[in-house]
Amino acid sequence: MRRALEAARDNVNVLPNPSVGCVILDDSGQELALGRTARPGGPHAEADALAQLGGIAQGATAVVTLEPCGHTGRTGPCAQALIDAGVARVVYAIDDPHPAAGGGAAMLRDAGVHVESGLLADEVREQLAPWAYRYWHGRPYVTWKYAATLDGLSAAPDGTSKWITSPEARRDVQRFRAECDAIMAGTGAVLADDPRLSVRDENDLPLPYERQPMRIVVGETTIPNYYRVFDRVAPTLLIQSREPRDVLAKLMENDIHHVWLEGGPRLAGAFWNEGVIDRVIGYIAPAMLGSGRAALEGEATTLADLRPIEIDDLRTVGPDIRIVGTPGPPPREAMGKGEGYE
Amino acid sequence: MRRALEAARDNVNVLPNPSVGCVILDDSGQELALGRTARPGGPHAEADALAQLGGIAQGATAVVTLEPCGHTGRTGPCAQALIDAGVARVVYAIDDPHPAAGGGAAMLRDAGVHVESGLLADEVREQLAPWAYRYWHGRPYVTWKYAATLDGLSAAPDGTSKWITSPEARRDVQRFRAECDAIMAGTGAVLADDPRLSVRDENDLPLPYERQPMRIVVGETTIPNYYRVFDRVAPTLLIQSREPRDVLAKLMENDIHHVWLEGGPRLAGAFWNEGVIDRVIGYIAPAMLGSGRAALEGEATTLADLRPIEIDDLRTVGPDIRIVGTPGPPPREAMGKGEGYE
Repeated sequence: MRRALEAARDNVNVLPNPSVGCVILDDSGQELALGRTARPGGPHAEADALAQLGGIAQGATAVVTLEPCGHTGRTGPCAQALIDAGVARVVYAIDDPHPAAGGGAAMLRDAGVHVESGLLADEVREQLAPWAYRYWHGRPYVTWKYAATLDGLSAAPDGTSKWITSPEARRDVQRFRAECDAIMAGTGAVLADDPRLSVRDENDLPLPYERQPMRIVVGETTIPNYYRVFDRVAPTLLIQSREPRDVLAKLMENDIHHVWLEGGPRLAGAFWNEGVIDRVIGYIAPAMLGSGRAALEGEATTLADLRPIEIDDLRTVGPDIRIVGTPGPPPREAMGKGEGYE
Repeated sequence: MRRALEAARDNVNVLPNPSVGCVILDDSGQELALGRTARPGGPHAEADALAQLGGIAQGATAVVTLEPCGHTGRTGPCAQALIDAGVARVVYAIDDPHPAAGGGAAMLRDAGVHVESGLLADEVREQLAPWAYRYWHGRPYVTWKYAATLDGLSAAPDGTSKWITSPEARRDVQRFRAECDAIMAGTGAVLADDPRLSVRDENDLPLPYERQPMRIVVGETTIPNYYRVFDRVAPTLLIQSREPRDVLAKLMENDIHHVWLEGGPRLAGAFWNEGVIDRVIGYIAPAMLGSGRAALEGEATTLADLRPIEIDDLRTVGPDIRIVGTPGPPPREAMGKGEGYE
């Protein structure tokens, strides 16, 4: 399972598909094939692994990170493919939360395949969270990225903000952006900085159009059509609202799983206050500014509003400090409940 | 020399004396004695080491971090004590910058002792900087400590600020405070938080009065006499000015070498703008507040005012992140020149 999980982690971004890994073993535990899910239209992990064996795996065990799907989408149901190949046993980590795709385990059991689940479930759940979040909680997974000085400032009082962090940090950002299927900024940040909001490679060349996350520009101010968010590098969606619930609902409609929120302390503050930021990636430049605009414009009034962030990773990237963390729950019940998403 | 330097580093706070280490070796390089400078009134490092040998070190080598003093203060000149003990060779790292105490090397040479200097000079210079800064630059060495959230805030909008960081971080602060000879805060911070500004041990008991740094309260607002800065735990000096040059001049008059600046983003901002902060110790709580008071209230107007901090140490202290750094020069020539200090 660890090998299947690592294959899933090392995979390219396959959103809106889940990045799944599958290892097929013979009855002595020898690995016969290793598969991973491709981008939409390509094979799922199980199909990828079975194809390496000519579709035949008589008596074998399939170890797969996610419950094999039981529905026909662009590809046939993986559960059926495993049955047809003669697999005797399937071990998976977590149930498929997709409302249509579930039922694979039952289909396997009905065909007499021995099925177990739960192995490395916590780790797989974490790895699949950005994909699965919408099925678990009814909204996309939100990663908020910010760059700031040691004194928490993202721009000088005159609005200048390029570049606070190092070229190394900016390259690191590209790697994270490439894992998302949407890159979002507010109209204020777009007007101020004219960002590209696209994913570029190490030579600063954009990835192909079909591999670019969707660019999301949020707010009611009109952006002139010569701004770079309107170039032909990636698709762009305008959402004329700054209300996080509206924005997240629009992202759901557009089949977005994992949105990268970047740019605009007010937009970040609105999401922060709403408690809908799931991961924080902060780049802190070893410098002080003394006055300027904060990275986050929230609505705290007293110290009881302090919201902890669990640090998952702390390291330096070039001269900068990088913090990856998970926000704790909002201090007050700011979140709306029972309205479709969390 | 490394052993002498380590003895000096491990020493208790001996300000206004320099923390010096001295190793005496026989002609085979065997260590005969290890001494370190005591608090005022006690022996200097050389005298401490010689005393262990009954004042006799015929033909020996003395390795000492600072040039042996050549003047009579509360103790006799160390250079003379080394000559009297019969030391044949003295190796020291850096010259004594004290205007009255210098001249020891010349005194030794005149007596026929072989003298060398410069060994590990950079490391010793760094270790002795807080003591020596006033002789090199005409003002005390300033360490600024702040505690903030990941978004750079030190207090909520309503002024609440206790405690942003963890008990572990607060204990760590006590250790650093104990290395200074003054702890300074602005009247605003004193009125808001009623801090003790004293050094406490692990059981939260204050150190003895004679080992407490001087408490410095800066500003023109009157502090009622029932505030804790006026308790009998440590001496307190009021400086009725917020002008960093005035404050530093007053500290010079009071024989302060190393001041710990803590509390008051405006006071910190004034020192920051003036370019008179020599070391920054930041404790960053893994939490976000979203709005509140910044740790530093400076006067930057544009990104060109960004001032780099060289990170000397980055680690976690309990749940918090601790950064120790050295500020680069101010972006503009904000410093007054030729007025007695820097």
